[in-house]
Amino acid sequence: MFKKILIANRGEIALRVIRTCKEMGIKTVAVYSKADADSLHVKFADEAVCIGPAPSNESYLKMDRIIAAAEITNADAIHPGYGFLSENAKFSKLCEEHDIKFIGASAEMISKMGDKATAKATMIAAGVPCIPGSEGILDSYEEAEKIATDMGFPVMLKATAGGGGKGMRAVWKVEDLKPAWDSARMEAKASFGNDGMYMEKLIEEPRHIEIQIVGDSFGKACHLSERDCSVQRRHQKLTEETPSPFMTDELREAMGEAAVKAAEFIKYEGAGTVEFLVDKHRNFYFMEMNTRIQVEHPITEEVVDYDLIREQILVAAGVPISGKNYTPQLHSIECRINAEDPHNGFRPAPGRITSYHAPGGHGVRVDTHAYAGYMIPPNYDSMIAKLIVTAQTREEAINKMKRALDEYVIEGIKTTIPFHRQLMDHPDYVAGNYTTKFMEDFEIK
Amino acid sequence: MFKKILIANRGEIALRVIRTCKEMGIKTVAVYSKADADSLHVKFADEAVCIGPAPSNESYLKMDRIIAAAEITNADAIHPGYGFLSENAKFSKLCEEHDIKFIGASAEMISKMGDKATAKATMIAAGVPCIPGSEGILDSYEEAEKIATDMGFPVMLKATAGGGGKGMRAVWKVEDLKPAWDSARMEAKASFGNDGMYMEKLIEEPRHIEIQIVGDSFGKACHLSERDCSVQRRHQKLTEETPSPFMTDELREAMGEAAVKAAEFIKYEGAGTVEFLVDKHRNFYFMEMNTRIQVEHPITEEVVDYDLIREQILVAAGVPISGKNYTPQLHSIECRINAEDPHNGFRPAPGRITSYHAPGGHGVRVDTHAYAGYMIPPNYDSMIAKLIVTAQTREEAINKMKRALDEYVIEGIKTTIPFHRQLMDHPDYVAGNYTTKFMEDFEIK
Repeated sequence: MFKKILIANRGEIALRVIRTCKEMGIKTVAVYSKADADSLHVKFADEAVCIGPAPSNESYLKMDRIIAAAEITNADAIHPGYGFLSENAKFSKLCEEHDIKFIGASAEMISKMGDKATAKATMIAAGVPCIPGSEGILDSYEEAEKIATDMGFPVMLKATAGGGGKGMRAVWKVEDLKPAWDSARMEAKASFGNDGMYMEKLIEEPRHIEIQIVGDSFGKACHLSERDCSVQRRHQKLTEETPSPFMTDELREAMGEAAVKAAEFIKYEGAGTVEFLVDKHRNFYFMEMNTRIQVEHPITEEVVDYDLIREQILVAAGVPISGKNYTPQLHSIECRINAEDPHNGFRPAPGRITSYHAPGGHGVRVDTHAYAGYMIPPNYDSMIAKLIVTAQTREEAINKMKRALDEYVIEGIKTTIPFHRQLMDHPDYVAGNYTTKFMEDFEIK
Repeated sequence: MFKKILIANRGEIALRVIRTCKEMGIKTVAVYSKADADSLHVKFADEAVCIGPAPSNESYLKMDRIIAAAEITNADAIHPGYGFLSENAKFSKLCEEHDIKFIGASAEMISKMGDKATAKATMIAAGVPCIPGSEGILDSYEEAEKIATDMGFPVMLKATAGGGGKGMRAVWKVEDLKPAWDSARMEAKASFGNDGMYMEKLIEEPRHIEIQIVGDSFGKACHLSERDCSVQRRHQKLTEETPSPFMTDELREAMGEAAVKAAEFIKYEGAGTVEFLVDKHRNFYFMEMNTRIQVEHPITEEVVDYDLIREQILVAAGVPISGKNYTPQLHSIECRINAEDPHNGFRPAPGRITSYHAPGGHGVRVDTHAYAGYMIPPNYDSMIAKLIVTAQTREEAINKMKRALDEYVIEGIKTTIPFHRQLMDHPDYVAGNYTTKFMEDFEIK
């Protein structure tokens, strides 16, 4: 087993990993930017190394400094969390070259799954249902127009290096295709330095439902059922739940089987997520695979009574997985508490937390790096806490979330707590009747 | 279902009940003494009624004021929590007379189980194993001496109205019996206004293991497995866990069956606990039955994924129970965080909490009424929080408890956190090798 793990991340996920390491008797090294000197992950780690100033490019994305920090502190593994370098093939490779175990996917796996067009081709080969569309990257606008006309509108143009909604355009008729093609490529070039585009059939009334999988170094994989992440605003997830209110036993079995097939086909090691779009007829299509732990992993942990970070570490150390697929017996919901003003277009609202009190009691979990007096820096993602509730039924979970949100005190900054409280009373949310379009018509009161 | 429940208690248990009521859509009324005006249970309830000054006799034990508060606010039920009036037959009766549902045992049941000698006679009739000893209350010292000599020393003298170790004496030889008899009776008279005594065989190397039961108004009962509460200091529980490290499948089945038999024999309604002493040969003996929710109920909730307060309310409203016995698949530990100085004989340490931050993350639950700025009044029980952790195995749970204790920040007062942290490293505790005598030799570092 590893003796010391460096966590190449910040915020709640750095703290999350440190907690599990402590419980496993593994020493921890935090890295931090100057803006994060007062962060809890720095306080709770056994050692901490400052790796540069606030901009991520100068610290959390600075591979050589992170590798140096690991070498100086004699860390034998690096956990990348999510975001930052978690799906960076070069960094995974660099760790390997320095004899430091990267607790995540291999460079080869990341390359394969990180490029969306390649990932799709791989999944088609594995027999996993994919959205109809172009085979790989489009060579020209002419090819795009031909495929769109053949398969019929609406279609979706997507940047192969994309993410977070950047370089993505829905197109409903042929005369809109050229302008969309030009602007999406320009955006992709600016955002990712790569203007490669591919095209898919646009799924109407889509639900974003993902399957958590775990694979080990013996080629075995299993799934831990689904998470419904359809409540999104501009492709950013706001709240997630498991089971999905749209799920049936048959659909779970089919999606679970497809996800395990995908993982075993590529010999996936570690925790990963296979994201699917599900249409209103319960057809499901591979969207992408995330080769890392996800923000919303706790709801799965709560229903399967299972520590996923621990499992990642064990798999990385060569321990075989149990291989048991899970069907949730409980219901769990996560609300992402962001330092944003929901009454002002969810504008980021960094600043100092003057008063802080987390909800507690039965079925309530809080994952956060926030505390009274903490100064939220303006440089990073605005998520400051995850509130997770678990109960016997969906109705009970929603009621529990309401009372937990009512108890949550975060003063000094604006947060998304009022939005979530309103969401939990929304008739369509309560009925489980929502798609990824849900937020387009949501009015914040 | 009830429309509004008055909670006749304070502190964390009042908050605990309010939380479940909120989740069930039931309005709540808090009652409070003047010393508790700033308590969280007052803030979180829908309504709050001040019922008098700090001493419990003038407020939380003042039955007429509590009944009046319920009538003024139109509460249709009262939840008594634990302690105070929770096992008071007169209060249960008074509620009934005022057409207010008492969420607890009937007056008859409380009388039957509250008087220890009567309880024992009832259990013998039900066929539940009891500790050999006197049949009911001892008529005289002479009878005590005869029974002790016949059954053999060591023996235990106990006040029939006793609790918390008061009016209780272990006697190892005949010449010590008379002085013990006199002093125990005097103490019982002073503490409970009742000097009735009974005698039992003293169990050597005893473990305190209790079975959580739930019974409904249809005469059906089930058990939710055990809690090991052997780590006690002067008969005050400090930490509890489930499953018991001393438990076997056979013993659980036998004890569970005995507890269900006891509950069904007396047609017990609601949540209750049958406490047993278990000797080193795994013989078990009925000790007492608590006709209320217990402080340590959360560890059971965590392993059975079940809200016990909700179940109490449902049963009180006439809903039948599922009737399923549980066997824990997880391991849960509770540490009672008291405002006491463990380095100074656990002396109560009330005062103002200047800084407060609770641990969080996977498998961690905190039930507390404490917060930053809260002034702990000197008038009540010193327990200010319950830290509960749950994991797949006992070893993982202990490691999780260590890291959670390390994270817990309560400044401005002394607490038992350092004691618990030391306990979690104690070789005998770690080995699960402890009896109710464990704390007698425990040295706080």
